[in-house]
Amino acid sequence: MTTAVRSMLDSYPADLGALDRDALAACIEACVSCSQTCTACADACLAEDTVAELTKCIRTDLDCADVCAATAAVLSRRTGYDAIVTRAVLQACAAICKACADECDGHAEMHRNVPRRGRRRFRSRYRVLHIP
Amino acid sequence: MTTAVRSMLDSYPADLGALDRDALAACIEACVSCSQTCTACADACLAEDTVAELTKCIRTDLDCADVCAATAAVLSRRTGYDAIVTRAVLQACAAICKACADECDGHAEMHRNVPRRGRRRFRSRYRVLHIP
Amino acid sequence: MTTAVRSMLDSYPADLGALDRDALAACIEACVSCSQTCTACADACLAEDTVAELTKCIRTDLDCADVCAATAAVLSRRTGYDAIVTRAVLQACAAICKACADECDGHAEMHRNVPRRGRRRFRSRYRVLHIP
Amino acid sequence: MTTAVRSMLDSYPADLGALDRDALAACIEACVSCSQTCTACADACLAEDTVAELTKCIRTDLDCADVCAATAAVLSRRTGYDAIVTRAVLQACAAICKACADECDGHAEMHRNVPRRGRRRFRSRYRVLHIP
Repeated sequence: MTTAVRSMLDSYPADLGALDRDALAACIEACVSCSQTCTACADACLAEDTVAELTKCIRTDLDCADVCAATAAVLSRRTGYDAIVTRAVLQACAAICKACADECDGHAEMHRNVPRRGRRRFRSRYRVLHIP
Repeated sequence: MTTAVRSMLDSYPADLGALDRDALAACIEACVSCSQTCTACADACLAEDTVAELTKCIRTDLDCADVCAATAAVLSRRTGYDAIVTRAVLQACAAICKACADECDGHAEMHRNVPRRGRRRFRSRYRVLHIP
Repeated sequence: MTTAVRSMLDSYPADLGALDRDALAACIEACVSCSQTCTACADACLAEDTVAELTKCIRTDLDCADVCAATAAVLSRRTGYDAIVTRAVLQACAAICKACADECDGHAEMHRNVPRRGRRRFRSRYRVLHIP
Repeated sequence: MTTAVRSMLDSYPADLGALDRDALAACIEACVSCSQTCTACADACLAEDTVAELTKCIRTDLDCADVCAATAAVLSRRTGYDAIVTRAVLQACAAICKACADECDGHAEMHRNVPRRGRRRFRSRYRVLHIP
């Protein structure tokens, strides 16, 4: 999907300045992918026999899905760019991504299916933190 | 709508601690209402004859709608509460609400319909900043 | 909140035609309120001791929150109105609202806290079905 | 991103039945990608000199972004599957995708940057219609 995100950036009709388009496209893609993964992870946790032990994980997933989706949308807009808003939104996104990855790691040994999802998620989130 | 938000808080089955339920319900309601108002404001700006002068206002509205919706969802969840995440999300919400109110005030004298929407929006946003 | 929704409709700068503004404002408000209530209901279900019996209820709540939020946004936009799209979105909203209300009613006798939330939700949803 | 969507399906802990996982993953990916593309397209249209002629295109983009995001979330959840709800949501998604593609095609000759975005969008949407 990174190709589609990058193509949209390349067809933007106004000047994008010295923006690193590859880094931005990778970040938008990471947010979008993380949002979908967290939505699916919350649902997979609901289907675990141990759902009663995973309620904080589910809640963190739902928050992460919402905040990553909002971050992807803010980053996808280039008209009337506002650095203060962008930075605050990215900081909120990094905070929930860290909380969500920590929560997942905590379940890695106890729950057979959760760690695989957790590791995949952590990788996609890590990229979000390297936003300029 | 504050009544419905508050009723949901009151029917939450676990302990909410020393939480100020009225303040939280008012904040959730402000975020939800601000999100809808910004969605409608972006659309109203699209219908103005002067739309070409309002593109930054529209973009700010769209960001504000997305971030306020995510903030309302995060605040509506009480299971597995995380103060660090909540604070970061509220700071992002306050940043976009301030940017959006500033943008609206700038159009207040030039555009007949915008200031009315702008003032209403600013009031609802101001309440968001007083979250504990 | 209906007042704010209605005020935004009244400040729309172009012609709204023979639109029943009160009915539209009530429907937008119902969708927005239902979305928040379902988000809070899913979270409250997570905090129930019987969460393992409530997983379908949680899933239906999450779907309902997403679809009602999208419906509220579509209805809040008046520029370039498309009756076919609006009708299809309302039908999807009515379908998930009915499924969600049915799911809630099923838990009314078994779970102390769920029915109160369910009844409140059903009322707000019922209004959605009367959209012209 | 399809790989990540598919991996989440493969790590779902309960039985998925005779579900065609590749088709579902492709559909979720198409909805997620379309939502991001439409968000970026609405923003790119705002930056065109001819923005005043593109207001219906922007509105359709915003609707499409919202409905595709909700559809992706509904499809990503497998717990408590409801065929009636899923079908209604997919029909709403197909309706807005068709309206959005038609709107884009209408601008293909007049606006240099729009058709490239339009064609890319149409392809990703077309896949949504082939959902079983």
